[in-house]
Amino acid sequence: MNHPVATPDRLLDAARQLFSEKGFDAASVREITRAARANLGAITYHFGTKEQLRLAVVDRVARGFAQRIVEALAPPNPAPERLAAMVEALFGFFADYPDAPRLMLHLLAEGGPSPGPLVAQQRRVLEAVATVVRQGVADGELRPVDPFFVAFSIVSQSVWFAIMRSRLAALAGLPDRPELAAAVQRHVAETVTRAFAPVGAAS
Amino acid sequence: MNHPVATPDRLLDAARQLFSEKGFDAASVREITRAARANLGAITYHFGTKEQLRLAVVDRVARGFAQRIVEALAPPNPAPERLAAMVEALFGFFADYPDAPRLMLHLLAEGGPSPGPLVAQQRRVLEAVATVVRQGVADGELRPVDPFFVAFSIVSQSVWFAIMRSRLAALAGLPDRPELAAAVQRHVAETVTRAFAPVGAAS
Repeated sequence: MNHPVATPDRLLDAARQLFSEKGFDAASVREITRAARANLGAITYHFGTKEQLRLAVVDRVARGFAQRIVEALAPPNPAPERLAAMVEALFGFFADYPDAPRLMLHLLAEGGPSPGPLVAQQRRVLEAVATVVRQGVADGELRPVDPFFVAFSIVSQSVWFAIMRSRLAALAGLPDRPELAAAVQRHVAETVTRAFAPVGAAS
Repeated sequence: MNHPVATPDRLLDAARQLFSEKGFDAASVREITRAARANLGAITYHFGTKEQLRLAVVDRVARGFAQRIVEALAPPNPAPERLAAMVEALFGFFADYPDAPRLMLHLLAEGGPSPGPLVAQQRRVLEAVATVVRQGVADGELRPVDPFFVAFSIVSQSVWFAIMRSRLAALAGLPDRPELAAAVQRHVAETVTRAFAPVGAAS
């Protein structure tokens, strides 16, 4: 086989899928290694423990999530356009990783503090948003607002849609299709643009 | 004992707490009946099955949730104030039922469609929001907007804060205190007011 996927990558993919489907505790080492076509000792060999495999899965997903957001927020566009690009990046991420929302739900339902690798990526996102918001306020493109709240409004609405999309489609009586995601994405971007527009600006 | 809590109520309370803490599958009939100080056959006697007890728990929580929102949206205040009152009702509900967010997380993490009793209450909320939005648009208090999107923006931000509050507090480097919830509540209300203000209104 040319370009085979290395065992650690196969383990990470299999673990992400099984943790997303069943939760961390319910997904067994036996299932993960079987799905990854690896031997039963492969998790110990490559990651040490199942918990360390879990942290590696969270790290990889959170890193991909943060990377897209940081890229979307990069200069040189005006701040409101960069925030709209962040919304687009979030919807794009969840379209490409449909098992990510449920992985997140299991992680949250388990309780306890966020894993370190996730917090590190959240900080990266927060810093990128803060840079854009501070510059946007200084340039008169945004009203004076705490960057934490801007990040909160964008992430909460985008993640909630990713979590709820099939249920929201059913509730709205619409098919769960990319067109619905596109309409909600436009709504979130518009909401954010209007909510953080400079005071006195015509909306 | 005067005014003892009836067995079905004790079972509902114990089940809500244990489902929230451990998830539906992991919370056993034995644990629930023990926590409710009821005999092992009490769930079968009062509810039929564990699944029917689960639906009764969801129904009770969702009904309380919807009831507060419907009351907050009642006339006669202007539409923007009624939407801000809905935000306040949501934050108030989660302050009073701190185990509700995690119950919701387990329900969502389990996958599958929303249980019928939950959908019924979501429809009630949607109808109440739609009434307020249609009247607000007709009276020039809101820009023309799909009521579904208004409900989405309010519920997504309020529920996400309830789910994430301790993690968001840690990320912001702030104590997880009612003052933080109050600040986020003001932010969500202000965001919604600005986002759905009439076109051309001074913000």
